[in-house]
Amino acid sequence: MIAVDWGGSNLRAYRLDDHGRVLGQRRGEVGALACDGQHAQTLAGVIGDWDDPLVLLCGMVGARGGWIEVPYVPCPAGIATLAAGMVELGTHAGDALRGRRLWCVPGMADHRGAAADVMRGEETQVAGLLAQLGPGRHDVCLPGTHSKWVRVEDGAITGISTALTGELYGLLRRHSILARSMPATEPPLDPAAFDAGLAAARAGGGLLHDLFGVRTAALFARFEAEALPSYLSGLLVGHELQPALAGAADGPAHLVGSDALLERYARALSAHGRTVQRHREDLAALGLYRLARARFG
Amino acid sequence: MIAVDWGGSNLRAYRLDDHGRVLGQRRGEVGALACDGQHAQTLAGVIGDWDDPLVLLCGMVGARGGWIEVPYVPCPAGIATLAAGMVELGTHAGDALRGRRLWCVPGMADHRGAAADVMRGEETQVAGLLAQLGPGRHDVCLPGTHSKWVRVEDGAITGISTALTGELYGLLRRHSILARSMPATEPPLDPAAFDAGLAAARAGGGLLHDLFGVRTAALFARFEAEALPSYLSGLLVGHELQPALAGAADGPAHLVGSDALLERYARALSAHGRTVQRHREDLAALGLYRLARARFG
Repeated sequence: MIAVDWGGSNLRAYRLDDHGRVLGQRRGEVGALACDGQHAQTLAGVIGDWDDPLVLLCGMVGARGGWIEVPYVPCPAGIATLAAGMVELGTHAGDALRGRRLWCVPGMADHRGAAADVMRGEETQVAGLLAQLGPGRHDVCLPGTHSKWVRVEDGAITGISTALTGELYGLLRRHSILARSMPATEPPLDPAAFDAGLAAARAGGGLLHDLFGVRTAALFARFEAEALPSYLSGLLVGHELQPALAGAADGPAHLVGSDALLERYARALSAHGRTVQRHREDLAALGLYRLARARFG
Repeated sequence: MIAVDWGGSNLRAYRLDDHGRVLGQRRGEVGALACDGQHAQTLAGVIGDWDDPLVLLCGMVGARGGWIEVPYVPCPAGIATLAAGMVELGTHAGDALRGRRLWCVPGMADHRGAAADVMRGEETQVAGLLAQLGPGRHDVCLPGTHSKWVRVEDGAITGISTALTGELYGLLRRHSILARSMPATEPPLDPAAFDAGLAAARAGGGLLHDLFGVRTAALFARFEAEALPSYLSGLLVGHELQPALAGAADGPAHLVGSDALLERYARALSAHGRTVQRHREDLAALGLYRLARARFG
């Protein structure tokens, strides 16, 4: 089968054998919301010469404005419920992919709070983890532009909490008064400044107040300009972590993402006295395999 | 005398009589940091035909990058200390203002926390309030791009806490994923959506998480698009208020600012069970008068 994780900024395709092992891997640079109706042609351009008939997709490709809008499956949901919520692309598949069976995985929604929460793509990454996590309660953190905290209980996804951490970092880094004191290109992580940001986030002044501390840190030369982005990053990650950990399970926090991001989150979680377990970023391939097995045997 | 409140975006000049009453009022549209060395000419263009010899200035005109950098006076400071920290512009005054005595009020800094806090201009507005506040402890809130919470104890300014509320609202409103769901022009306040934002801020999920709730509110049509900016505003003001009120004094919160902003803050403070007292936005004129009397009799 072919597993496709098609997000807002790129596409990752995996060719899998009958045991879910990755035989080949490719990448496309067209985001699922920027395809202008050319999803079939775009996908065919990446996987056209892989002749496997079954293609499973997850991610923003199933969002409004993507290829096909697949309704959100509400929490709680495990592999079976997610597999049952998959939608066949049918006539959407077009000529370029004739003869294929294309299915798209639903996103998930959490309606427990006054404000709903959602994810698309991350449910499939977590689906790839479920067997490994086993019974009991677990917290999975997938940091990024929109960081997702996913609660797993006894093999089912039971809660979603999103934090705008990465997006806000980018906005403040580029467009705010804080940007004026910072170098334009991203310097390497300054661990001491990052830790100082984490500590400031715990002082109880609130994020809106703490952000102004980046300005005064520049004003009074508390840090070099090169260290200010790390201080800002520590502040934001610290403010993401505090409410996320307030009701978290015992045991390690499960981290899924790029090495550079996980390095920061592992450091922050460790400062909060939490152990972490890191997982491969390409978990979506395994998740899609598990969903295919659950639906089609 | 002439009192000039020269901030980052405009200049307000007041001609005062010997009792501090406002005889005339003018406005210039050139910010103190955007004058390109032409401060004297710019000011002369506004007040040139008022022949009072004494001119007192406050605000960003005294910041690095302004007309003259006046060192911050640390907390605590009352009228006498602020007046003693004023700096004469001397030869900076230039030809256009020959024969005038120009003095600039210092900003204030609060070094109590790990991250310092500062203000320039607001100390003078609060100086105009001090006599009226009387003994005991009071909290003054000056909402804006950078909201200032100023603590007053027995006639002295003893603490400063800044929140990036207004700036973050603008960034999110224009540049974030949340902007896509909102009308481009600013709709009138939707009180119900604003209150829902205030309530969400108290739920303990943290600001970074709550912001994503604006996205899902659009996704699930919880509010009309016209109401989303009010929901975002309620979230941000709510998150500003919580830490600010955590250690606040009893008695009314003193609000200084524009009617539209004070309306929102009064509403939010009332939702937190606090009474408010509103004050005129042009308090800086009175503050400059009091500082002139303290320094020059």
